[in-house]
Amino acid sequence: MKSLLPFLLVLLAPLAFADPLPSWNPGPAKQALLDFVEKTTDPASKDFVPESERLAVFDNDGTLWPENPMPFQLAFTLDELKRRLPDEPAWKDDPMVQAALAGDLPTLLADHYKGLFRLIELTGSGMTTEEFDDRVRTWFATAKHPRFDRPYDQLAYQPMLEVLAFLRAKGFQTCIVSGGGADFMRVFAERVYGIPPEQVIGSSTRAVFELRDTGPVLVKTMKDLFIDDKSGKPVAIHQFLGRRPIACFGNSDGDLQMLEYTTINNPRPSFGLLVHHTDAEREYAYDSTPKSSGKLIDALNDAPKRGWIVVDMRTDWAKMFVP
Amino acid sequence: MKSLLPFLLVLLAPLAFADPLPSWNPGPAKQALLDFVEKTTDPASKDFVPESERLAVFDNDGTLWPENPMPFQLAFTLDELKRRLPDEPAWKDDPMVQAALAGDLPTLLADHYKGLFRLIELTGSGMTTEEFDDRVRTWFATAKHPRFDRPYDQLAYQPMLEVLAFLRAKGFQTCIVSGGGADFMRVFAERVYGIPPEQVIGSSTRAVFELRDTGPVLVKTMKDLFIDDKSGKPVAIHQFLGRRPIACFGNSDGDLQMLEYTTINNPRPSFGLLVHHTDAEREYAYDSTPKSSGKLIDALNDAPKRGWIVVDMRTDWAKMFVP
Repeated sequence: MKSLLPFLLVLLAPLAFADPLPSWNPGPAKQALLDFVEKTTDPASKDFVPESERLAVFDNDGTLWPENPMPFQLAFTLDELKRRLPDEPAWKDDPMVQAALAGDLPTLLADHYKGLFRLIELTGSGMTTEEFDDRVRTWFATAKHPRFDRPYDQLAYQPMLEVLAFLRAKGFQTCIVSGGGADFMRVFAERVYGIPPEQVIGSSTRAVFELRDTGPVLVKTMKDLFIDDKSGKPVAIHQFLGRRPIACFGNSDGDLQMLEYTTINNPRPSFGLLVHHTDAEREYAYDSTPKSSGKLIDALNDAPKRGWIVVDMRTDWAKMFVP
Repeated sequence: MKSLLPFLLVLLAPLAFADPLPSWNPGPAKQALLDFVEKTTDPASKDFVPESERLAVFDNDGTLWPENPMPFQLAFTLDELKRRLPDEPAWKDDPMVQAALAGDLPTLLADHYKGLFRLIELTGSGMTTEEFDDRVRTWFATAKHPRFDRPYDQLAYQPMLEVLAFLRAKGFQTCIVSGGGADFMRVFAERVYGIPPEQVIGSSTRAVFELRDTGPVLVKTMKDLFIDDKSGKPVAIHQFLGRRPIACFGNSDGDLQMLEYTTINNPRPSFGLLVHHTDAEREYAYDSTPKSSGKLIDALNDAPKRGWIVVDMRTDWAKMFVP
């Protein structure tokens, strides 16, 4: 009987050689990512990293989906504000509410998003975590992005979804580490990105536990607000995950410190990547334009000396959004 | 050819019918645990719970290992205090240091462990997280429990290790939710319990990120101290894990609220268990003796009406510690 081996190889070839990143154009960014995953997961490689240490962290806004014309959580918050305003007459006197109603985004985003957090306090505290989840869920089911005319949760970047799936298939844990609210992101992260709640780290506050007649609830407050941005990101990674990442994906100076934490003098092989918004036609083009929320100056400057890969969205990505 | 089936069944029988909890004596506690796991993991059961929802939370001190004559982290802290005292002459004036040197535990544990946290501030902040980890590691390698004359990390309860392994084999995530310090517990939790850092939730503070010449570090502080005890436990479960547990294991009133959060009006089937310290001969016997750190009054009273299983360590556990 003839060997079945050649036949089997033909059958398996499409699996073995399938491109795990089909929405990425060939180029140095794609190659660097493939090379890093290959060398850290091949047991014969000197750069092999045990599975338990394969932690990859991802910023969300601007890295896994757009952050323009404003971060999606801000769009949710503004919609909530308008929806509830008729029932909350006192809100009209608040300067940040006035800024919001006037569409004055710079004021809301100034002073490290101070206005946004005030609006989040008004619209996102005082209710139970379950009530909040329901509101977020309803918003995603009804609101649409003004430019792309799609529900916001159908704007994930297809190339990044492929990175998430590829890394997980290679034994990586893929965690979100974002300035967005953890409670907000956890409503969609599992469905949109395949990332379960315990792997979603974001800005957060302490809820309050109450045992009501109907059962236990957690009531959202603004207590102990922690802003998971800039140097807060490595702090949160330590507090929530307790180990140093070996791969980090970001797109703004808010990700600078977690890129540093991941890649500088890490005893493990490490990888840093910046998504550079260069595609005004299919998405947005910005580094530090006043209108954009994601400033990318310091991290872009540091990229060459740190060895961080800079993705040019216009040329590196064959596709932009999920189909 | 005769069927191989009978032969295969004989071979597999020890696997299929092996007792997953051999250190538990037969009885209602063991049976309740087996029944809960069976009904939530059998796809044909009406109480089946999808794997992603199988979250089990465990207190540590008094639940997975002893908390007498004092919580092990307090023993570490006192040893650190004595070790470093010659180099820190100012410490001698601190009333809590004086209480510690006088062996005055009630003062240290009063006012919700206020003295202990002062000692933790002295001995557990101002250094990098890596330096702290090294100190904890060294202590576990050198210190011994005064009564059992074993390294502290060789005093895990064998029956509880079996519960952890059994639940994980059945697709549960097993997380620690303890009043102990997260940084302290993460040094040994993976090695002793098989629980990775990101599944260890404890009392915690915010570290500070610094990019030094030698690379990035996180410096331990006492900023934003969060005490993961009592109603803090469900709050932390929400903040760190983002979903409601279906099984909860504790041993003191510090676990009351997370037992309530897990079991009262949970839309999923749920399970609560209290480890009751009744074995003065092999371990300790206490509910609310002044010398014990783990008070068990309210939770024990509530157990019958809440359906929480009370483990009688003396009769339910055939073995106490790991071999």
